Amino acid sequence: MTETLEIEEQFDWLKEVLRKEDMTTFRDVFLDWHLYEEAQFYLSLDENERQKIYHFLSPYEMANLFDVIEEEHEDVKEFLAEMRPSYAAEMLTEMYTDNAVDILNQLDKATVARFLSTMKSEKVEDIKELLHYEDKTAGSIMTTDYVAIVANQTVKSALTLLKKKALTAEIIYYIYVIREDETLVGVISLRDLIVSDDEMMIADIMNERVISVRVGDDQEDVAKMIRDYDFLAVPVIDYEDCLLGIITVDDIIDVIDDEAASDYSGLAGVDVEAVAETPLKASSKRLPWLITLLFLGMSTATLISHYEVMINEASILAVFISLITGTAGNAGTQSLAVAVRRLAISDDKDAGFVRLILNEVLTGVITGLVTGAVICVVIGLWKNNFVLGLVIGIAMLCAITVANLAGSLIPMLMEKLGFDPAVASGPFITTLSDLTSVLIYFNIASLFMSFFV
Amino acid sequence: MTETLEIEEQFDWLKEVLRKEDMTTFRDVFLDWHLYEEAQFYLSLDENERQKIYHFLSPYEMANLFDVIEEEHEDVKEFLAEMRPSYAAEMLTEMYTDNAVDILNQLDKATVARFLSTMKSEKVEDIKELLHYEDKTAGSIMTTDYVAIVANQTVKSALTLLKKKALTAEIIYYIYVIREDETLVGVISLRDLIVSDDEMMIADIMNERVISVRVGDDQEDVAKMIRDYDFLAVPVIDYEDCLLGIITVDDIIDVIDDEAASDYSGLAGVDVEAVAETPLKASSKRLPWLITLLFLGMSTATLISHYEVMINEASILAVFISLITGTAGNAGTQSLAVAVRRLAISDDKDAGFVRLILNEVLTGVITGLVTGAVICVVIGLWKNNFVLGLVIGIAMLCAITVANLAGSLIPMLMEKLGFDPAVASGPFITTLSDLTSVLIYFNIASLFMSFFV
Repeated sequence: MTETLEIEEQFDWLKEVLRKEDMTTFRDVFLDWHLYEEAQFYLSLDENERQKIYHFLSPYEMANLFDVIEEEHEDVKEFLAEMRPSYAAEMLTEMYTDNAVDILNQLDKATVARFLSTMKSEKVEDIKELLHYEDKTAGSIMTTDYVAIVANQTVKSALTLLKKKALTAEIIYYIYVIREDETLVGVISLRDLIVSDDEMMIADIMNERVISVRVGDDQEDVAKMIRDYDFLAVPVIDYEDCLLGIITVDDIIDVIDDEAASDYSGLAGVDVEAVAETPLKASSKRLPWLITLLFLGMSTATLISHYEVMINEASILAVFISLITGTAGNAGTQSLAVAVRRLAISDDKDAGFVRLILNEVLTGVITGLVTGAVICVVIGLWKNNFVLGLVIGIAMLCAITVANLAGSLIPMLMEKLGFDPAVASGPFITTLSDLTSVLIYFNIASLFMSFFV
Repeated sequence: MTETLEIEEQFDWLKEVLRKEDMTTFRDVFLDWHLYEEAQFYLSLDENERQKIYHFLSPYEMANLFDVIEEEHEDVKEFLAEMRPSYAAEMLTEMYTDNAVDILNQLDKATVARFLSTMKSEKVEDIKELLHYEDKTAGSIMTTDYVAIVANQTVKSALTLLKKKALTAEIIYYIYVIREDETLVGVISLRDLIVSDDEMMIADIMNERVISVRVGDDQEDVAKMIRDYDFLAVPVIDYEDCLLGIITVDDIIDVIDDEAASDYSGLAGVDVEAVAETPLKASSKRLPWLITLLFLGMSTATLISHYEVMINEASILAVFISLITGTAGNAGTQSLAVAVRRLAISDDKDAGFVRLILNEVLTGVITGLVTGAVICVVIGLWKNNFVLGLVIGIAMLCAITVANLAGSLIPMLMEKLGFDPAVASGPFITTLSDLTSVLIYFNIASLFMSFFV
């Protein structure tokens, strides 16, 4: 994308304009940009420059820009603090309700209360409603800026109404049809609306099989639905079927991104979201996990030290410890990844619990048999000792089967217990399978000790 | 979502209707469903039942249903083969061009040629154009079913035109403005169109700063842009700025999902997409990777066997092999995950190459120092042998640093060489770091041998 370079040059040029306090030129150029570019420009400024921007742009223009800044952006708090309170409050009023709430959720209670007291009252009510919803539920990502109409009107009157609401609604491409008590009864796309005759009644052309989510549904389930149905938005209803808000596809993309990153982080045992950190900060985040695993690994070492006498008698046994623990660890990681992914995309999380685990154990037996047979032959030929080969082969079969069991069972149990299954990270499974592998290996080896010494 | 259960009951009921060949009832109920549900129902049928469906539904109705079936669905080929060829050809004609192309891409050349020869000529041209584009580029996921108008007309005439195109276009919420030579010159949202005065000229209200992607751009970059800008669609242009097609947000969600799954699969060394497989099939997919790693692991075993004499003299050394390889493997996996994620989300993949690696190595030194110090003290106290503790500690410091270097360097090199960095999978890095860890450990230990024996 060649625009990237050009944009950097434009940024530098516009900063010069800003410095010269040439408000007319600044507004001409800046407001012509796409909101995302406006936001990128704003984020590249220092506080002095930002102060100038607050003088040059209205709270409404600033609200549009803030609507596209990632709500997790660490400096948002600081930005709000440096604005005049009345300017910040007006900007929050002009923002889409869900985005304003995302920002308010990061401030302390006193600041939120101060902002709410200076904002327009109807917006305050919407915001207060959204502030209640639990994190990661449909309610927490929905917006109240939707278009709802009643069924008992013509296409023409609906279009007139739509024109009025078009500027404040977050998305106008689905129009929701409600009864007077706010019960959701239908939906009509703007596409259907504009191809329909002006005089037709909404009741006749609306789709009554409107697909909705409950306010308490998990955001992952909502993401799955929007993806499967190719929706641009989905309505959110309460437990009496009243329309509360809508969730738009752009927020769903963020959910999908976040969930993918969190599954991925789990598998690696590191938070991959914070990628641009100093080594010191990165170390401080990774160390707790590494040290925990180190102590778990110490138990493997302790276990091996119990068999030191055996190793003393047949040092050849020591040669293959890593091979067995490594292979079992690899198999366990594969099982874990499949189980976590399965839990993430499955509709019905209870069904197939036993079957998945059984399948994984069977897969473990099959891969273990093949891997065990291969290593039995290889070691038999290499060391000219087929008993040793057999010991390693059998140990590998057992270790892989157990690792597959652990890799599928542990995330399933996590899910059952209400934890995120991705927390059962790859390194944890690997270290756990090291322990069982060593136990299996030396116990099998001890049966054949007479052949090695 | 309570609908799920109800739908299953409806499915069973409708299958009964299908069996009774009650076409009127079937069409009444079936066509009232959402397309995704129609598709789910269709996918749950056996061939006999599907044959009935082909009699009950027109190729156009079937095309709508096929538009929502995942193009990767393994049975799509079979479905097409069981339809009358003329029915299948008409269905393909009626589908959105990008989806028809996705299906054709899975068939052999002779079958594609046969279909193309019986399809409507204007559609064939569109399809032939799309068939050329390389996999994973913007061209390969775009559709030609967009709405384009010229600037020199009023809002009213544009709306009239839009009504005509509304039924065949995949998305009508962005209208692209082109010159007569098809050069893309602007964009206007349907929202802006319907709030504007009927008599205004498109040229005056269109946005001339239209953001587009080139046909050869990587689909991941397109996904990133749509996510950042919150677009519902983005236009695709050729290298002379002519509009070729559009990419819609629903296809982008699939891209984001696929890329996330492929990064995740890479980290685990298993294809997690195919989750509902039989153990035999799963084994056959996992075994090549496990066996490859097994042979890589054999090199570690061979290396250890070179130090068998040392182990014979001081069997205590064998006790800590897994602890060192395991910890280094964990650290390497963390580095790998961060590097792969960084490559996936970064705009400029060249910048920061050296810095990221330097950061990772520094992080390795810091985490290695802390981990090494901890293990030195623990082992020193446990075995009452601080020289041993020191050896293990130093070995761990070196092994972690090298593992971090490998974990960040290898995916970076993959990227430079044009491979997907996610191919540098977790198990591969772990097994590689086993090898270097053992080498480091025994070399350091050999310097201190006199203290152990």
